Amino acid sequence: MQKLDSSMMDFEERLEIDDFESEVMERIYSKPLLIKRVNTTSQIAIVGANVCPVESLDYEVPENELVNEDWRSRRTVQIFQYILLKWAFALIIGLSTGLVGIFNNIAVENIAGFKLLLTTELMLKHKYYKAFAAYAGCNLGLATSAAALCAFIAPAAAGSGIPEVKAYLNGVDAYSILAPSTLFVKIFGSIFGVAAGFVVGKEGPMVHTGSCIASLIGQGGSRKYHLTWRWLRYFKNDRDRRDLITCGAAAGVAAAFRAPVGGVLFALEEAASWWRSALLWRTFFTTAVVAIVLRGFIQLCSTGTCGLFGQGGLIMYDISAAKVVYSTPDILAVILLGVIGGILGSLYNYLVDKVLRTYSIINERGAAVKILLVIMISLLTSICSYGLPWLATCIPCPADASTSCPNTDVSGNYKSFQCPPGHYNDLASLFLNTNDDAIRNLLSTNTVKEFHISSLFIFFVAVYCLGIITYGIAIPSGLFIPVILAGSCYGRLVGRLFEPISELDVGLFSLLGAASFLGGTMRMTVSLCVILLELTNDLLMLPLVMLVLLISKTMGDMFNKGVYDQIVKLKGLPYMEAHPEPYMKHLIARDVVTGPLITFSGVEKVGNILHALKNTGHNGFPVIDEPPFSDAPELCGLVLRSKLLVLLKGKAFSKDMVLAGNKVLSKISELDFAKAGSGKGLKLEDLDIQEEEWDMYVDLHPIANTSPYTVVETMSLAKAAVLFRELGLRHMCVVPKSQGRPPIVGILTRHDFQPEHILGLYPHIRFQQ
Amino acid sequence: MQKLDSSMMDFEERLEIDDFESEVMERIYSKPLLIKRVNTTSQIAIVGANVCPVESLDYEVPENELVNEDWRSRRTVQIFQYILLKWAFALIIGLSTGLVGIFNNIAVENIAGFKLLLTTELMLKHKYYKAFAAYAGCNLGLATSAAALCAFIAPAAAGSGIPEVKAYLNGVDAYSILAPSTLFVKIFGSIFGVAAGFVVGKEGPMVHTGSCIASLIGQGGSRKYHLTWRWLRYFKNDRDRRDLITCGAAAGVAAAFRAPVGGVLFALEEAASWWRSALLWRTFFTTAVVAIVLRGFIQLCSTGTCGLFGQGGLIMYDISAAKVVYSTPDILAVILLGVIGGILGSLYNYLVDKVLRTYSIINERGAAVKILLVIMISLLTSICSYGLPWLATCIPCPADASTSCPNTDVSGNYKSFQCPPGHYNDLASLFLNTNDDAIRNLLSTNTVKEFHISSLFIFFVAVYCLGIITYGIAIPSGLFIPVILAGSCYGRLVGRLFEPISELDVGLFSLLGAASFLGGTMRMTVSLCVILLELTNDLLMLPLVMLVLLISKTMGDMFNKGVYDQIVKLKGLPYMEAHPEPYMKHLIARDVVTGPLITFSGVEKVGNILHALKNTGHNGFPVIDEPPFSDAPELCGLVLRSKLLVLLKGKAFSKDMVLAGNKVLSKISELDFAKAGSGKGLKLEDLDIQEEEWDMYVDLHPIANTSPYTVVETMSLAKAAVLFRELGLRHMCVVPKSQGRPPIVGILTRHDFQPEHILGLYPHIRFQQ
Repeated sequence: MQKLDSSMMDFEERLEIDDFESEVMERIYSKPLLIKRVNTTSQIAIVGANVCPVESLDYEVPENELVNEDWRSRRTVQIFQYILLKWAFALIIGLSTGLVGIFNNIAVENIAGFKLLLTTELMLKHKYYKAFAAYAGCNLGLATSAAALCAFIAPAAAGSGIPEVKAYLNGVDAYSILAPSTLFVKIFGSIFGVAAGFVVGKEGPMVHTGSCIASLIGQGGSRKYHLTWRWLRYFKNDRDRRDLITCGAAAGVAAAFRAPVGGVLFALEEAASWWRSALLWRTFFTTAVVAIVLRGFIQLCSTGTCGLFGQGGLIMYDISAAKVVYSTPDILAVILLGVIGGILGSLYNYLVDKVLRTYSIINERGAAVKILLVIMISLLTSICSYGLPWLATCIPCPADASTSCPNTDVSGNYKSFQCPPGHYNDLASLFLNTNDDAIRNLLSTNTVKEFHISSLFIFFVAVYCLGIITYGIAIPSGLFIPVILAGSCYGRLVGRLFEPISELDVGLFSLLGAASFLGGTMRMTVSLCVILLELTNDLLMLPLVMLVLLISKTMGDMFNKGVYDQIVKLKGLPYMEAHPEPYMKHLIARDVVTGPLITFSGVEKVGNILHALKNTGHNGFPVIDEPPFSDAPELCGLVLRSKLLVLLKGKAFSKDMVLAGNKVLSKISELDFAKAGSGKGLKLEDLDIQEEEWDMYVDLHPIANTSPYTVVETMSLAKAAVLFRELGLRHMCVVPKSQGRPPIVGILTRHDFQPEHILGLYPHIRFQQ
Repeated sequence: MQKLDSSMMDFEERLEIDDFESEVMERIYSKPLLIKRVNTTSQIAIVGANVCPVESLDYEVPENELVNEDWRSRRTVQIFQYILLKWAFALIIGLSTGLVGIFNNIAVENIAGFKLLLTTELMLKHKYYKAFAAYAGCNLGLATSAAALCAFIAPAAAGSGIPEVKAYLNGVDAYSILAPSTLFVKIFGSIFGVAAGFVVGKEGPMVHTGSCIASLIGQGGSRKYHLTWRWLRYFKNDRDRRDLITCGAAAGVAAAFRAPVGGVLFALEEAASWWRSALLWRTFFTTAVVAIVLRGFIQLCSTGTCGLFGQGGLIMYDISAAKVVYSTPDILAVILLGVIGGILGSLYNYLVDKVLRTYSIINERGAAVKILLVIMISLLTSICSYGLPWLATCIPCPADASTSCPNTDVSGNYKSFQCPPGHYNDLASLFLNTNDDAIRNLLSTNTVKEFHISSLFIFFVAVYCLGIITYGIAIPSGLFIPVILAGSCYGRLVGRLFEPISELDVGLFSLLGAASFLGGTMRMTVSLCVILLELTNDLLMLPLVMLVLLISKTMGDMFNKGVYDQIVKLKGLPYMEAHPEPYMKHLIARDVVTGPLITFSGVEKVGNILHALKNTGHNGFPVIDEPPFSDAPELCGLVLRSKLLVLLKGKAFSKDMVLAGNKVLSKISELDFAKAGSGKGLKLEDLDIQEEEWDMYVDLHPIANTSPYTVVETMSLAKAAVLFRELGLRHMCVVPKSQGRPPIVGILTRHDFQPEHILGLYPHIRFQQ
């Protein structure tokens, strides 16, 4: 990818660019706006701080002889197999994601538990420096392992993964984002990262993991290992893969939060860009499987067979013990909580964005620098976690505590730390715990005085800042837990302040604080609401949680976008928004069509095709039928680069300029035309065309999509964008309004709708209403 | 509407058909398939057993000088007003629906409570015949009132209303379905119907009520009462109305079940055909408002100020007292429950369909017959409710009963009926109660032996049959409650049978039975799951409820469609399915374009337009620019009947064939072009065109949609259907593939995609795979 940096590439080098990179190339080289485009770099995805090419996905159903033949050849039994397999895949995704979720939790609880036990033991012997050395050492070792995995094996595994999944489901495939190596690093990197005590969650990574599993399953067998069935080719298209990955994302949330309904809603509200009722049902099935797997294992683990994995694992904060009563002052307090939570949430987004931009510059300097950054943040986290509790004063244990106090267990509320017997250190109970346990402590009900206001304040500031500077380093890092952690601490703080006038338990305030932060950063509504209710098992809080979410989302939206949208933008992924920008109303489709259009004849010379494939990066070429095949030039269809490569590879050539018809299909298996997985398709170098074959002809009719969606050149760009987005297109043909002109004006792709492109062409249009 | 019955209408009569009816007319008269079409009658909606015209809605954004001018004239402050108003409307919809929900509940509880108290008092005095007379008399009076309201004021208010709302949100506006009179009858008819002891619910009617309220608000002021602001015209389009009505439907469910999240999901999964993330948020806000209104009133009523409205009102079945424990035998029992529930549910659908077909024939005979049918069903229901409890033997009161036994209250578990003191009649506890209370009794936990198996069986059979024969009579009747009632009885029955091997409480079995029936009839998944959880306030049942819903939906789908889809089909509403039928792949767009195409020139003679408007029922006319306005004939755009009528009314004519440009807009206010509410638009009779004006010219350019979505004639019908459905179109232009032909081949409307139309043209294509 370093090639991209030197924009002065010559023709010879260009030929080496493979099919996959071509779309990026296309945007940079084939258009007149060379310099502007390279400067914005918006067309190149920055995934895990690595510049990475992106490929657009195509959800259009092509129509041609090939597809018709394929359709005719389907037997009823195959259609049945297809339906059965869809559900089998959903089952497998649910099962695997559930198992990975369990594995992840058991591993984290055991590793982090061991670390905390060691530290606590040394503390009890008053060997404070040794305890710090052990604590920080463990953290450092785990952090370095996670960073090394990320830096050397799969840079794409860094970060949350939700923005990338969101972009994929919008039709942008950033290379390697769903590769097996990413999956591997995501699972283990997440375990090490969370166990290392970072203020990161395993929820985002679980969503990414679920999507990776789904993507692997969706590859439709492996030709390398001869694991390909003829009817598996029905899955070899972007639509079916999209459906599977939606299921995977939902399964990830379900496994992370033990929230099956929340998972479905998350996939629906945040992840997916297209949705249909049938998919809702399949997603629901997947998350139901996850829920059953989790429940089975938790029952198994409750007998003590999972090591230190006990109550602590698999977050579930039962707050149903608290009585939900509230009156007008409470509601006012809750509204205030929502307002401030929304502001703090959007500030969080702003700071994360700034930090991320800084880190992406740092991380570009190589793997060693990446790891160094992780080490620095790990040390800082260890110092905060171990050092700040010394600021807290020891509190005498409450007489009526239901759990033992002080507590020397792995999890639990009352950590003794440096305190004398019968006392506990409230800050240590928060800092020297896993994040899940810290949240559980913050949400604990009927324990009003457990945490000092000053301790809550210190913890809040520390977690808020650590969360911001941790996201973006080279480890898999979810955003949910840091936000919930900071939010619940903030909520409890507010609860303590409103204690004199409020009837609501501080534990419930804590929940509402978490909701306000989530609403302020993530900007989801229904899915967050359901996830929180499923997490806390208390439906009576529903009206208040809804209220807080609505307020904080509204407040947040006044300042900036949701954190995932921000990251998608920062990474330069060409995301298609649901609504066109207002200024698009003032442009027509023809206005943004740029660059020379390369078209093929219905029966085209091999040499011309090869030349076009080599010298442009276009992925779609219009095919024009001309006399003698038609009376006047007419648009026959659109042919894709990937299909052309297969056709050339199959050498279905003829000496004369004649229609080949179905002869092509007899030469090349339909299976070869099925879409390969990310980056696995044929490349230009794989072709072996002899010099004498350059003058032969090839019939493009069987493989061209004969009915691409078209718009008239005078349609407003806004209206064209709606068509493009709603139908999930990759190419859209712009046709002339009047007759007697060439039958196609140009092709619009996803990039042509990006604000950077349009504002590059018409800088002043932004200010038009 | 009787006009439709005589298919031998002559030309003169045809001219009287107003704009609103024209689409139906179009389908019947303007196409060559006259007889076939009249026979299938699929294009005419049978709403409340009345034949009723339908109008297609148009979600396409038109583009022309008019719209551009309108857009340019918008100030920032107006856009802000627009956004603010959207939220204000959502607030108002939430408030009003919540208030109606409360009013409905209070009225039902008081009326039904009075009736039941009277009966119980007479029973206690052993005046059994008098008791029956009082009971049946009250029922009869209430039933007749409901039927009279329905038959004379608003026939469209009969039935559930959910199918019609679903069809509206799909783009089919059945006239008067959302009219104010329908709203009025829906509210009061529903109160009388439910209080009359019918096996009907108030949930479907609440959804319809919510939608009616939203529709009223969405009319954008009233010109009649001079309540129109200039900027309110921004709401005068189908898109914004659709959004409001989606919010209304969600608010209805939220008010009916006190399930705000379930309401959002219901709107999403079942009601809406199009969805966007922004709408999710607005819907969520609406249901949150409903939840808050309900909570406020329930707190108010808990002080006893609402008469007999006590615990009984506003269904909420708290089953959290039961311990949720289950093991393998329970799971097997639950699976069996789901399988049988799914089969019984689909049988229910089948029988409802048959009964509905019979009733629609009976109901056609006039209002008196309608009312007679209601009276008969009411008598039958009274006889069952009062007669069947005599079959039950008296059971001694349990010693540990937490509630008083026998119970003489309005609601409650242990009805004494004819039993001696210290005994209760279990069947009477189910029959002589409101439906809500009967469900509460069936779901009651920790009361295993309360109901005899034989009693449960009798009640199940009675309710199952009564539910089927009640739906379709001329009263507002929801389907949710009958299904939940039969389902929970069936579940409790299964629970009793599995008692020896199961650990699960029979109350929980009852809940699962309700879930299985709901899944088997309604075929929803996530929304039912959430509604049931919100109703019962027990998240621990989630995995089992999910399991049962998945199984019963799968079982049901094997036999027939969901009940609402069935009713939509039965009513002949031209619903666009999300997926095209398989045989559409074998047809191309040109194949289904039928009938003569009427086009206008860009500057057209007034006489020609009037002639076309009078003699065809088309709603959209292509406008072709011809020399001298262009070099060759080209498609200028599509003009709508409603816009033409406004233009003719404004008399923007000129003597010469010249472009008028913006002069038209100076003559006619933009406000006049805004879409009026259902059936309120200009009609042909409103025009007053003089004979001499017939030869004048009118410029159609400013009002024609200059960029209609087009498809090429060779595109497969399946692919064209996807475009039509995804973008919510009303008209789609089919353009020729080759040049040198007229620039438009024909127009496709929603009706052209209906299976009846296609299979009428190509009867044998159904069997092609």
